[in-house]
Amino acid sequence: MKIYVISLVIFSLSTSILPNVFAQEQRGRIRDFGISIGILPTGQHNAITDVSGVKVGHTTLIQGADIRTGVTAILPYTGNIFQEKVPAAVYVGNGFGKMLGISQIEELGNIETPILLTNTLNAPIVANALIDYMLSLPGNEDVRSVNSVVGETNDGGLNDIRGRHIQASHVIEAIHTAAAGPIAEGNVGAGTGTECLGFKGGIGTASRKLPSSKGGYTVGVLVQSNFGGVLAVNGAPIGRELRNFYMKDPKDTYKADGSCMIVIATDAPLSSRNLKRLAKRSYIAFGNVGAFSSNGSGDYSIAFSTHPDVRIPHNSKDMELTTIDINNNDMSALFMAVWEATEEAILNSMFMAEDMKGRDGRELKAIPIQQTLKIMKKYNSLQHDKLPRAIEK
Amino acid sequence: MKIYVISLVIFSLSTSILPNVFAQEQRGRIRDFGISIGILPTGQHNAITDVSGVKVGHTTLIQGADIRTGVTAILPYTGNIFQEKVPAAVYVGNGFGKMLGISQIEELGNIETPILLTNTLNAPIVANALIDYMLSLPGNEDVRSVNSVVGETNDGGLNDIRGRHIQASHVIEAIHTAAAGPIAEGNVGAGTGTECLGFKGGIGTASRKLPSSKGGYTVGVLVQSNFGGVLAVNGAPIGRELRNFYMKDPKDTYKADGSCMIVIATDAPLSSRNLKRLAKRSYIAFGNVGAFSSNGSGDYSIAFSTHPDVRIPHNSKDMELTTIDINNNDMSALFMAVWEATEEAILNSMFMAEDMKGRDGRELKAIPIQQTLKIMKKYNSLQHDKLPRAIEK
Amino acid sequence: MKIYVISLVIFSLSTSILPNVFAQEQRGRIRDFGISIGILPTGQHNAITDVSGVKVGHTTLIQGADIRTGVTAILPYTGNIFQEKVPAAVYVGNGFGKMLGISQIEELGNIETPILLTNTLNAPIVANALIDYMLSLPGNEDVRSVNSVVGETNDGGLNDIRGRHIQASHVIEAIHTAAAGPIAEGNVGAGTGTECLGFKGGIGTASRKLPSSKGGYTVGVLVQSNFGGVLAVNGAPIGRELRNFYMKDPKDTYKADGSCMIVIATDAPLSSRNLKRLAKRSYIAFGNVGAFSSNGSGDYSIAFSTHPDVRIPHNSKDMELTTIDINNNDMSALFMAVWEATEEAILNSMFMAEDMKGRDGRELKAIPIQQTLKIMKKYNSLQHDKLPRAIEK
Amino acid sequence: MKIYVISLVIFSLSTSILPNVFAQEQRGRIRDFGISIGILPTGQHNAITDVSGVKVGHTTLIQGADIRTGVTAILPYTGNIFQEKVPAAVYVGNGFGKMLGISQIEELGNIETPILLTNTLNAPIVANALIDYMLSLPGNEDVRSVNSVVGETNDGGLNDIRGRHIQASHVIEAIHTAAAGPIAEGNVGAGTGTECLGFKGGIGTASRKLPSSKGGYTVGVLVQSNFGGVLAVNGAPIGRELRNFYMKDPKDTYKADGSCMIVIATDAPLSSRNLKRLAKRSYIAFGNVGAFSSNGSGDYSIAFSTHPDVRIPHNSKDMELTTIDINNNDMSALFMAVWEATEEAILNSMFMAEDMKGRDGRELKAIPIQQTLKIMKKYNSLQHDKLPRAIEK
Repeated sequence: MKIYVISLVIFSLSTSILPNVFAQEQRGRIRDFGISIGILPTGQHNAITDVSGVKVGHTTLIQGADIRTGVTAILPYTGNIFQEKVPAAVYVGNGFGKMLGISQIEELGNIETPILLTNTLNAPIVANALIDYMLSLPGNEDVRSVNSVVGETNDGGLNDIRGRHIQASHVIEAIHTAAAGPIAEGNVGAGTGTECLGFKGGIGTASRKLPSSKGGYTVGVLVQSNFGGVLAVNGAPIGRELRNFYMKDPKDTYKADGSCMIVIATDAPLSSRNLKRLAKRSYIAFGNVGAFSSNGSGDYSIAFSTHPDVRIPHNSKDMELTTIDINNNDMSALFMAVWEATEEAILNSMFMAEDMKGRDGRELKAIPIQQTLKIMKKYNSLQHDKLPRAIEK
Repeated sequence: MKIYVISLVIFSLSTSILPNVFAQEQRGRIRDFGISIGILPTGQHNAITDVSGVKVGHTTLIQGADIRTGVTAILPYTGNIFQEKVPAAVYVGNGFGKMLGISQIEELGNIETPILLTNTLNAPIVANALIDYMLSLPGNEDVRSVNSVVGETNDGGLNDIRGRHIQASHVIEAIHTAAAGPIAEGNVGAGTGTECLGFKGGIGTASRKLPSSKGGYTVGVLVQSNFGGVLAVNGAPIGRELRNFYMKDPKDTYKADGSCMIVIATDAPLSSRNLKRLAKRSYIAFGNVGAFSSNGSGDYSIAFSTHPDVRIPHNSKDMELTTIDINNNDMSALFMAVWEATEEAILNSMFMAEDMKGRDGRELKAIPIQQTLKIMKKYNSLQHDKLPRAIEK
Repeated sequence: MKIYVISLVIFSLSTSILPNVFAQEQRGRIRDFGISIGILPTGQHNAITDVSGVKVGHTTLIQGADIRTGVTAILPYTGNIFQEKVPAAVYVGNGFGKMLGISQIEELGNIETPILLTNTLNAPIVANALIDYMLSLPGNEDVRSVNSVVGETNDGGLNDIRGRHIQASHVIEAIHTAAAGPIAEGNVGAGTGTECLGFKGGIGTASRKLPSSKGGYTVGVLVQSNFGGVLAVNGAPIGRELRNFYMKDPKDTYKADGSCMIVIATDAPLSSRNLKRLAKRSYIAFGNVGAFSSNGSGDYSIAFSTHPDVRIPHNSKDMELTTIDINNNDMSALFMAVWEATEEAILNSMFMAEDMKGRDGRELKAIPIQQTLKIMKKYNSLQHDKLPRAIEK
Repeated sequence: MKIYVISLVIFSLSTSILPNVFAQEQRGRIRDFGISIGILPTGQHNAITDVSGVKVGHTTLIQGADIRTGVTAILPYTGNIFQEKVPAAVYVGNGFGKMLGISQIEELGNIETPILLTNTLNAPIVANALIDYMLSLPGNEDVRSVNSVVGETNDGGLNDIRGRHIQASHVIEAIHTAAAGPIAEGNVGAGTGTECLGFKGGIGTASRKLPSSKGGYTVGVLVQSNFGGVLAVNGAPIGRELRNFYMKDPKDTYKADGSCMIVIATDAPLSSRNLKRLAKRSYIAFGNVGAFSSNGSGDYSIAFSTHPDVRIPHNSKDMELTTIDINNNDMSALFMAVWEATEEAILNSMFMAEDMKGRDGRELKAIPIQQTLKIMKKYNSLQHDKLPRAIEK
């Protein structure tokens, strides 16, 4: 059995050189088509990697007729994160999912591994590989406990999920190929086989940069989109216009279930308490894209801070740890940033995804971009960049 | 000191006979102006009272230049709710608030009093009056413990909140005047002095009725709206068009803070676990109206079931209590219902509110409806009733 | 109506000059009788006030045949706590109670008022008085929101709790008479009418001081004891020996219900996250005294840090707040301290309490100390001070 | 490499035929030595298997000098638990651990797999094997999502935990050999290499049966004990007498860390809400054995109900699910039962464990039973069976 692995190395050269297997219309990120979300400016790449130090890598498994899955790795910084942990928190929007690592993050307020995303039934094997990786790092020779952080959504619609095709090597590759800068989106990594709001889902990312008067911090979001609802794009009722939404027909041919993993990075120096508050605001963005967190949607948001002065040494000579938090009163701009970036990351995941055939001949169409843009013109939702925006400084 | 109390008795005759003190443009509910939210049909009155048995009463305090506050009472059913409790749950979106009663609801899974809403600094005095009321009910002569459920938002912008003007009699009046049928909205009861998304907030309500294939249940929502953000109405960017949104200017003249109390009733037979899940979905509706749950916004959702077969006797001969829940797999339609109804209830609270002058001469404008409708036409967001809707059966 | 108020001023002179109304055997703290709990040394007064800056005040209401209640105030430090808040957290052991203020403490990680304890049905009126007090403090002229922190247990066995006898003046008195140093225990303040483990309960306190190698911090605990179970004293099965325990007879004449409020102070610089972990350990002490947190027992623990460098300004010019936490790895000694101190505080509340007659002629006996000591000798549980102890440095 | 697997088949014949490798003194359960915990009677076998239908299986790995680990499986009933789930809840005492499955149990209120226990670094591989097992069951051919429930503690003191020696076959064996009736305890299954309160820990179990007037229900507990503190046995200060306790010396040679997994079964028909309350009471038992849930102790309790009428079908024709709960007011006796049974299960795990040599020549002594009994006589703690007990009917 040969497994074909398309790694980030290829993707990051250019997303446009991908073989357009299905005679797909031209894909792109939403801003490439004039769609502008919210009032805050994006970071340089409009990606989670705009948060200094963050790297992302994908391993994409597309093999034969039935294997459509992968792994995505998010590294908070380059270095031994076990020895220098970062503050983190998880918000559970809907706990119908199998994310690993939550209780320790909640208890200790930090993460000590990269964050990995994959499919539901492979989450433990990815965690197992992540433990291998952590134990093998120089400096971790005495480590006997690792809280592996692995999120998942269920790609069993297109992927032969029962086949459990992810192996340890895929995990290692995702970690090793992780890079800063632009991120491959759409049908890559853990998003290879996912479905979102009635169309092909995938990996998406976005970022926001606060004005200097609000701290000048950056918030980046990466999503693995795999859920349903009644799609809206920047206020336009696309799902209804395209007659593709939950409860559209008596036979429930549209499945609202699925899940969403949301990973949030910021360079703001935040306690785990305020990171949890930050993570929670990403849930509100569901409303903006037309999702309501259906019963079957395991929706988890994990947030971490990369600020160098809030790192937590695994071993410390001192009992007391001096750290930094943002005053509660100054959190609102960060909340707005994560809300906007989550909405945009979800839309990017859909606009960058392409049609895909998979398990048992099932085919899932990507959102028809030109048709969508036409509808958006009807709703005047392509001109938001001309509206008043947030203060710039 | 004379306090002028406008009670529900007046309001419930007709909302249109209200004296238009400020030469206000004609107010109405959003559907009166052709705004249609979502894909599900409303209940008969598009109000929380569409859930059979639920009653709502308001006491409105508008006195002199500075008093702009009130009390709103929601009664799950007519009867001694202490002796026959109803299943309930609270979801805390943002806990920067003073709602009373949460921990017991979480622990025991029920409520044993009506739900009362008021202003922040009067919450305890309202709880105290509610205890008086409960102790005085026939059948409660031996009661020595009452978990009073009181929510609040801060109306201190227009109201002399430090004056603490709510008294026990106002609480009793709100309870005693509670009625089924249409509900007074806008500047009434606990919404008298509130502010929402840059305009006058207040009390709003809405409901949804599921198709029979989804159980045919009704979900009703009532909100006390008092929060900020970047107002959207059915997808149209009204806040930005009206240049009235958070971070619009360097001096932060727009305050995003405030709070939101959301009360949810359903006749679906639900456990407290599923009621908590239901309550959580109301938080997603924030995204749809352009709110992101700012730091200062204490956002609480409380949900209860009125189904007669899930009531919980205070004393029972039997240890075992037979009850009913909805299968997890069948919850999604209810989630969609509460999501839509919350969005609509918030918008109703704003459209029904009127301009108000209050404390220290401060004036707060209601949302300019005609101007808003004009903008909505630009965004084609008045025609959603012509779009495909959910299955009817 | 005349209400007789016994204030802390009297009590703190000497507990031994109290008129022994019921021909009570000599009362005292457990160490006065040779009972030594745990392996850690106590602070100077073996009281919550050993944590530098903490003050405690009681208002005790004993009037006529039926009024047996009161108020206890715990002040984290002397100063305007609203303007300079302290980190805090609440652990809810069993949420069948009416404590006010929890959600904001959880969300924002701090308290902004003194902590007040009283009876169940008076909790809101005490909160109301606390708001009055906070609004009236110099510097708080613009304050329009106060998160009043009030705990309670139900003293309705001895007290005419339905009479709602606590008034605002009692609250103010408890705050104003709060003092450092030794604390009145037993039938005082909020413990005046409570019942614990089948005997008279009340207020109790204790403290622990860590060795310098563990940071040298002090942890102090104050309890309002009002719960049931199967009393153990330092390992001796006193409840069973005295035939006074839950399920002792078919008619359930022994009521296990009640509640426990546990207030924890420390001078260790802790985040709200680690304060919550600290608070949680007090729950474990229930096992040591023979309690199991019965259904009716509302058990809440609130912990705060008095370290001057972790205070939280209400208004701050800077967005970033530098603060201190204890490394997770160094928390265990603090956990042990709170566990030991809680057990001892509960026992002190019982040993210092005296027999009391109250509502409807009901009488509740204090734990018979001499008889208990006799039993303890049988179980050799008076000699623990001769056993090995923790390192001293 | 050959791995020697000692399975339950051997152990369940008789615990006394075990080769006494270390010239161990005779081991036994605490009641074999006259130690009687609490006031309630035990079930038939004083084991979690006294709850009708529950089965337990162990796979024990003792190989060479360094491998000391295993797997323990708890099956709520015989049948396809995915298709007929059971209500369940998890209480997290201290979340410094890696238990899998928590968020879905919390959200949906049930478990759909057996519960497996193992060592920290093998938890994901056990989960992976459990998914294999579930997918392979007849009737599960279409299953594409499984919430595997796996708990763990860290046996890295005696076991070469970094070697990751557990394999899928060990998991399957534990499940397949699971049986009703008496359970092997001590150094078996997931308890093979654990340490408890300064001595050898392991697997332990106990049960309680309520009087018929309290419902006649059975509560069974199984623990994987691996934590520290200041050991007490039925009130006697054994840890101090044996000079083996946390903070006994300046070099901290006694490690308080470790963890505890607590599995609770009951035939009472309980909702997930009341199961969570039940699970929480097991945490209180820590105090009784002298533990305080140190920072490094990941302490998790999972409770489930085996009552046939509260099972939850995976697929159901009906939306409404009729179920049963125990009235809140009638929960206290169950709380007491789990509290007592947890204390006893922990003690059984220690009394049944034997000395063990393991990794790097480290040796861990079992609790010296005869010496302990001698101390207990000093504290008169062997005669508790002569004290008054709970009502029998």
